[in-house]
Amino acid sequence: MKLCVIGLGLLGGSFALAVKAIHKNTFVLGVDANPAHGQRALERGIADEVLPLPEALKQSDLVVLATPVDVIYTLLPEVLDLIPDQATVVDLGSTKDLLCQVVAQHPKRGQFVAAHPIAGTEYSGPDAAFASLLEHKTMIICEREKSGPASLALVEELCRDLQMPLRYMGAKEHDLHLAYVSHLSHISSFALGLTVLDKEQDEKNIFDMAGSGFSSTVRLAKSSPAMWGPIFAQNKKNVSEALESYIRQLQEFKATIDKDQQQEAKELMAKANEIRRILG
Amino acid sequence: MKLCVIGLGLLGGSFALAVKAIHKNTFVLGVDANPAHGQRALERGIADEVLPLPEALKQSDLVVLATPVDVIYTLLPEVLDLIPDQATVVDLGSTKDLLCQVVAQHPKRGQFVAAHPIAGTEYSGPDAAFASLLEHKTMIICEREKSGPASLALVEELCRDLQMPLRYMGAKEHDLHLAYVSHLSHISSFALGLTVLDKEQDEKNIFDMAGSGFSSTVRLAKSSPAMWGPIFAQNKKNVSEALESYIRQLQEFKATIDKDQQQEAKELMAKANEIRRILG
Repeated sequence: MKLCVIGLGLLGGSFALAVKAIHKNTFVLGVDANPAHGQRALERGIADEVLPLPEALKQSDLVVLATPVDVIYTLLPEVLDLIPDQATVVDLGSTKDLLCQVVAQHPKRGQFVAAHPIAGTEYSGPDAAFASLLEHKTMIICEREKSGPASLALVEELCRDLQMPLRYMGAKEHDLHLAYVSHLSHISSFALGLTVLDKEQDEKNIFDMAGSGFSSTVRLAKSSPAMWGPIFAQNKKNVSEALESYIRQLQEFKATIDKDQQQEAKELMAKANEIRRILG
Repeated sequence: MKLCVIGLGLLGGSFALAVKAIHKNTFVLGVDANPAHGQRALERGIADEVLPLPEALKQSDLVVLATPVDVIYTLLPEVLDLIPDQATVVDLGSTKDLLCQVVAQHPKRGQFVAAHPIAGTEYSGPDAAFASLLEHKTMIICEREKSGPASLALVEELCRDLQMPLRYMGAKEHDLHLAYVSHLSHISSFALGLTVLDKEQDEKNIFDMAGSGFSSTVRLAKSSPAMWGPIFAQNKKNVSEALESYIRQLQEFKATIDKDQQQEAKELMAKANEIRRILG
């Protein structure tokens, strides 16, 4: 199979490495706006050849879009215009509604599968990629009914090979849930990092006095602005609503502290403890 | 050495296990308000004997207070009243200012060392204890000048044995920093858990769609209300101020999303990324 990966970073690179590990005869055509990333992808065996987009597309069986979501949004219609009639395009972006809308009327919509793997780390670029990133991670497929049977079957089979459980839902539903269980926690981390960096001018204090709890909570503040800026913009309404709820919870918590309502504070914490039931 | 540990949970239990591993001739007298915890501590080899407080105190060389901070606050003056003249008392609580104030005029103030190990997990109770919890974690000692030379030396030496780097500071300074680098991140997690549980009535969505990023950010929402309620109450002023700054950062971030200011959002994230320099 000729696999074209557009965006040779954490996700695209990991996807290529995983597919190559399973299907030894896969030939990966890499495309990346950053020549240094293309070079690193060749060196790491992520891509077998790095080509300009149009040349890569015309010989591809499967095209994977793994760039930031603003670039996916711009590229997807072009990619559909250019691919061969038997080829399939799948994207790995964290937002789905706008993207599905922009190709809703495209004559080749059936060749596209809108997907989102629930996988990632706070690092980015080809050096961050590793073959097992996607293993046992849920792959969400949106608007499956808009994808043609052959394209859908190809992506589903590949997910099974990669040991990724599949889940199906609408694009709007996807974006709403992701605002709460992913996008919000990135903003909570970014804001925590900003608050602490702003207060603690002496970095030694953060280093010495912050424990593993702080590290865990602030980890996502290391995430890439180029990746997350467009996600928040594309999922603006849901993310804004989630943030509003979050700020309201924080204000409620703060009120219990300001008013010495220790019993109420403990009740809020006990309620939050229920997350144990779900996350173990 | 006869070591009395009051509060046989995560911290007290781990401290006892670590000291026993290094000083084989240590005999641990355990004290706990919960008889089931006392029993578990005996079974796990955390304590060699479980006794009522006054009986344990009168034969102790070193007393460790490892209960929630409201209980430490109540017990410390009593413990100082009852201990032998050569004994030392150290506490392991996350707040220091009120505690140091309540014993400032105590005739045996010199026998007390106010300490706080930067160590913990989201679990609690004797079953959560493990011998290596404190290893290579910073021990902060507050108001060292108020502790007598013998008591201070005993605690410092023990910390060196446990491979805990020492750091010294005032009690007010301690509480201010901890509000930012520890207490705030617990509240950010509790509030995140509450926000998501409130929205996602169908737990399957959290389970399937939440990735490792969410798990990491919400981990501290599993923490014990009995432990954290009194910490927030005792460090009320600093925690409230930290929360106010945090809410302001979130509102600023939200404004960039609501107003489509993607460039400003990316600048905030790039600034937050600087936490990498400190946390690696």
